[in-house]
Amino acid sequence: MSYYAPSIEKLIEAFERLPSIGNKTAARLAFHILNSSKEEIDEFIGAITNAKQNLKYCSKCFNITDNDPCLICANDARDKSIICVVEDVKDVVAMEKTHEFKGLYHVLHGSISPMNGIGPDDIKIKELLTRLMNGDVKEVILATNPRVEGEATAIYISKLVKPLGIKVTRIAHGIPVGGDLEYIDEITLSKAVEGRREL
Amino acid sequence: MSYYAPSIEKLIEAFERLPSIGNKTAARLAFHILNSSKEEIDEFIGAITNAKQNLKYCSKCFNITDNDPCLICANDARDKSIICVVEDVKDVVAMEKTHEFKGLYHVLHGSISPMNGIGPDDIKIKELLTRLMNGDVKEVILATNPRVEGEATAIYISKLVKPLGIKVTRIAHGIPVGGDLEYIDEITLSKAVEGRREL
Repeated sequence: MSYYAPSIEKLIEAFERLPSIGNKTAARLAFHILNSSKEEIDEFIGAITNAKQNLKYCSKCFNITDNDPCLICANDARDKSIICVVEDVKDVVAMEKTHEFKGLYHVLHGSISPMNGIGPDDIKIKELLTRLMNGDVKEVILATNPRVEGEATAIYISKLVKPLGIKVTRIAHGIPVGGDLEYIDEITLSKAVEGRREL
Repeated sequence: MSYYAPSIEKLIEAFERLPSIGNKTAARLAFHILNSSKEEIDEFIGAITNAKQNLKYCSKCFNITDNDPCLICANDARDKSIICVVEDVKDVVAMEKTHEFKGLYHVLHGSISPMNGIGPDDIKIKELLTRLMNGDVKEVILATNPRVEGEATAIYISKLVKPLGIKVTRIAHGIPVGGDLEYIDEITLSKAVEGRREL
């Protein structure tokens, strides 16, 4: 049963459909919108329509972008001999924030997950292999997530790329900086020991 | 510094401006919007524009409504001799959900708060007094929030309404149902004792 006026009820429902927004938050957002000025609302709607219209995937790396190729692929200062393979667009941003990686990216848009019916053909693996064909690339860094699906995807890709004579590396597993050995799970800790380096 | 394409950066910023939405949630919502179909997005935008265009305040009780007077004021089955005074539109919904109150409402749109520069003239007190002039109302229930501002507002209104010969009541303070005496603050507990009723 609805206690609000129909228009606000519909607005609350619209917000509730967004991920991680519950009923109370949806109501708070709806009232915030109602109390916003016409200009603020137009700006909000403009940002949505504009994003939906302008954004596309880069035809090279499949990052999300306003222009094709994306700013990273089009940047001549980037090292075109290293490709970092990630699962998601947000992972590109996470990597960029480190300011350490100066190569190119390849966004898979998922990971191999037979449980969810996602096979190698459902993510951008074929497109990665096509990119590697021209011989410019010397190293592929597999930065898929350290979960079962990400590991399986990394192993799958490495088996395809190694025969091409390209170096394949996997980002290190270990304890996070600032982490506490006491609270780290056993698998991570054993991976950290396994990946130990001489000082 | 921005790591996303400009259009998505703007969309994330638009979501971040909403209350209780941080950077990570804003990014999640932005990507959800991007992955939504054209129809879903049109529906979302439609809900916003529709709500902003259609919603107004009821000229009688100042509840938010599509039609003036609102459904509650226009409902002949409601008891027009009792008015429940609340601070906010959401409080009307909270009261309606109890299914106990069958009278009318009056939404003040705030509470007297000298600290924030809100005086009696800034909320709908004058409009309440005008409604009481026709003599139909027998009781005014003051359901402002049990905080300093709400209490001050209740006392202020009661002093204006009592001389009109209208019964003025205040909702009870006490321990919430399911609450634990051990964890209730002293003021609430003393109010609960003060407001004890014979069984």
